[in-house]
Amino acid sequence: MLEIPVGVSNRHIHLCQEDFEALFGADSELSKAKDLGQPGQFAAEEKVDICGPKGTIKGVRVLGPFRGHSQVEISRTDAFKLGISPPVRDSGNLAGSAPITLNGPAGSLQLKEGVILAQRHIHMTPDLAKQYRLTDGQMVSVSCDGPRALTFHQVLVRISPAYSLEFHIDTDEANSAMLNSGDVVTLE
Amino acid sequence: MLEIPVGVSNRHIHLCQEDFEALFGADSELSKAKDLGQPGQFAAEEKVDICGPKGTIKGVRVLGPFRGHSQVEISRTDAFKLGISPPVRDSGNLAGSAPITLNGPAGSLQLKEGVILAQRHIHMTPDLAKQYRLTDGQMVSVSCDGPRALTFHQVLVRISPAYSLEFHIDTDEANSAMLNSGDVVTLE
Repeated sequence: MLEIPVGVSNRHIHLCQEDFEALFGADSELSKAKDLGQPGQFAAEEKVDICGPKGTIKGVRVLGPFRGHSQVEISRTDAFKLGISPPVRDSGNLAGSAPITLNGPAGSLQLKEGVILAQRHIHMTPDLAKQYRLTDGQMVSVSCDGPRALTFHQVLVRISPAYSLEFHIDTDEANSAMLNSGDVVTLE
Repeated sequence: MLEIPVGVSNRHIHLCQEDFEALFGADSELSKAKDLGQPGQFAAEEKVDICGPKGTIKGVRVLGPFRGHSQVEISRTDAFKLGISPPVRDSGNLAGSAPITLNGPAGSLQLKEGVILAQRHIHMTPDLAKQYRLTDGQMVSVSCDGPRALTFHQVLVRISPAYSLEFHIDTDEANSAMLNSGDVVTLE
């Protein structure tokens, strides 16, 4: 039985360097505020406001390091507030995802696409994947107990030697199961 | 295989008549805006603001008819915004539930308890319950498909001749499964 620690992702944004400079100024640098669960990933000091046709959410945290394309990950609760309908997608799979306006201290920009609801996923090392006979890209199910016991299906397995074992869900998913970061779920 | 229509409950409040009069004035009457899925239940025109130690949510819909005790049903997303920790409870089971301040157009009042995260539940008639060998108060599991396929456990069965068949969940639960009102889930 494999127990996997939960990592709850609040809404956040990954930026490409060009978009970062448009929002924060050409001379700005991304400042690390806190390391995250996955090695090399960090929460930055910088925040942006995100604006949809029905509403704005202020102070959305930028994560680093820079990526090739800017990507906004929100909950479906957030999506209703903004008035957009982002698809459920794996990170980086942005074709046809939802548009959004970003406002930073030095400028604003409109992304034609880039907003997703993150596909729930497990980060796992190759050794552990081999032990449990799992392959990269496979869909599995995980369960948790408690007053809102749930079995999450359609959980994407992502395998890399650079990963720490973690089950990533957004705040809606965490709340529907009464889960917090650091709780554990069980692989079915 | 029993298919059950989903009813997504947005945050709402049930009031006892005394609390209604404190908030809206002694001469006020509860005005029906729209009938709800369960016979006799309705959304009222009236709304109140609910205030916790960390934030306020404006315009929370009052449901009718009046109840014996006031009860506020919110999502865990809302609870974090308000700064309170309501328990997962069946409707009416309010002992030790979370406190809240209510603000209406004619006055304000502090509930020492009354805020809950609603236990997900199925409304069902005795005939259907008999056919599926279910009893009032039993816990069952229901599943849905799609990009966020889920199995909800700890689903309370509530049986009455006055009920329409419906699976009630809050917005966090709906969003974690990409469900909307009128979608169907399957009894396991």
